[in-house]
Amino acid sequence: MQIAFVTYPGVTALDLIGPYEVLRALPGAEVRFVWHEVGPVATDSGVLYLGATHTFADTPRPDIVLVPGSGTSTPSTARDGRLLAWLRSVHETSRWTLSVCSGSVILAAAGLLNGQNATTHWRALDLLRPFGVRPCGDLRIVAAGKIVTSAGVSAGIDLALHVAGEEAGEGYAKAIQLALEYDPSPPFDSGSTSKASVKTKALAHKIMLEHGMFRPAELASATRLAWGAALSRVRDRRIHASR
Amino acid sequence: MQIAFVTYPGVTALDLIGPYEVLRALPGAEVRFVWHEVGPVATDSGVLYLGATHTFADTPRPDIVLVPGSGTSTPSTARDGRLLAWLRSVHETSRWTLSVCSGSVILAAAGLLNGQNATTHWRALDLLRPFGVRPCGDLRIVAAGKIVTSAGVSAGIDLALHVAGEEAGEGYAKAIQLALEYDPSPPFDSGSTSKASVKTKALAHKIMLEHGMFRPAELASATRLAWGAALSRVRDRRIHASR
Repeated sequence: MQIAFVTYPGVTALDLIGPYEVLRALPGAEVRFVWHEVGPVATDSGVLYLGATHTFADTPRPDIVLVPGSGTSTPSTARDGRLLAWLRSVHETSRWTLSVCSGSVILAAAGLLNGQNATTHWRALDLLRPFGVRPCGDLRIVAAGKIVTSAGVSAGIDLALHVAGEEAGEGYAKAIQLALEYDPSPPFDSGSTSKASVKTKALAHKIMLEHGMFRPAELASATRLAWGAALSRVRDRRIHASR
Repeated sequence: MQIAFVTYPGVTALDLIGPYEVLRALPGAEVRFVWHEVGPVATDSGVLYLGATHTFADTPRPDIVLVPGSGTSTPSTARDGRLLAWLRSVHETSRWTLSVCSGSVILAAAGLLNGQNATTHWRALDLLRPFGVRPCGDLRIVAAGKIVTSAGVSAGIDLALHVAGEEAGEGYAKAIQLALEYDPSPPFDSGSTSKASVKTKALAHKIMLEHGMFRPAELASATRLAWGAALSRVRDRRIHASR
């Protein structure tokens, strides 16, 4: 059970680490952090570094692939042709193709979500539409066959427990939940846009701006660039098909 | 607002990354990952590496210090005299001294929890007693003045939101919760020992054994060694007091 976490510069660490703690406990799990090169990768805070352990070339057939989101580099990563080609290739043989937060925008840019339902961070929902994806902003997890996408950041823990249940059975997944003592008890109840006040939403926008999370200017240009990525994907596909 | 995360070999990544994502969004936050040396630090899976950014010597007065837990090296870390001395020193001026999971055992070994209530991962509760700490296994977060300890692994997110609310106000903490879309919806309800079946508990023990999480032999010897650490702490204190 080889599990590949795409570990790109600017990644939001919790998007990746939440599912990692769950999925690494699956029977026979072999975990890899994959990127173009092996070595340290800066996350979106610019302070925390994670280590990439394997290259894409080293990892042609993971059983599970997971793409986390990013507060700073979703758009640029969604234009990384070599990554998108690798995602299309590994998706052909994966058991599960997963995303957390704005990671679904990268799956969409790879052409894996065409005409499907998917979710993402509430602030990135508009980034899915240019790729022909139906955003389901009211759902925490959206399963479409072997592709499962989740809402923002912390939702990756719920997504991974869902997949663990499907893969290893509910009894096993429950034991992982207990090992991680995942009995959440947030002191407030403002974790989704349906529950948060207008004031909380405005402040959340401000915090994300100031702390290297989602940047509106980048999002706006990303919406434009998404088209370019979609086009280049079509071009890539043609080249691939003509081989 | 300098925030120091103790980043030791064998740390459980989610113990640290959950609170990091919350606390880094505090106004004026300056995040540091501290250890004896700057550089890559292997987590308890042996596969994931995090980067230590600062040494203890570089970080004499953090406003917040957080000690995460470990599935493999809580006992050895709780015997690290230089770490324990640093914790005692920074606790004198910290605004908050925090632990997640078995990180409270390390705070206890530093002598910071004497005679106090505290919590930890459900499997590590017995490790607190030799240090004269009252384990509160039924609570997710235990606040004792500026020291706040939490239950296992995922509980660090709840702990950090609590501290964010105390430090920056409830309105600000709610906005962080929304930024992280922390509206948990686990597919199962077995995240605490009070909710899990006997079968789930047995399987959780087995998983933790096999996947580099808590090891009973290490725990048993740790309970003995805890006494040694407690004694050496007393000795350290005397040396300190006689200077």
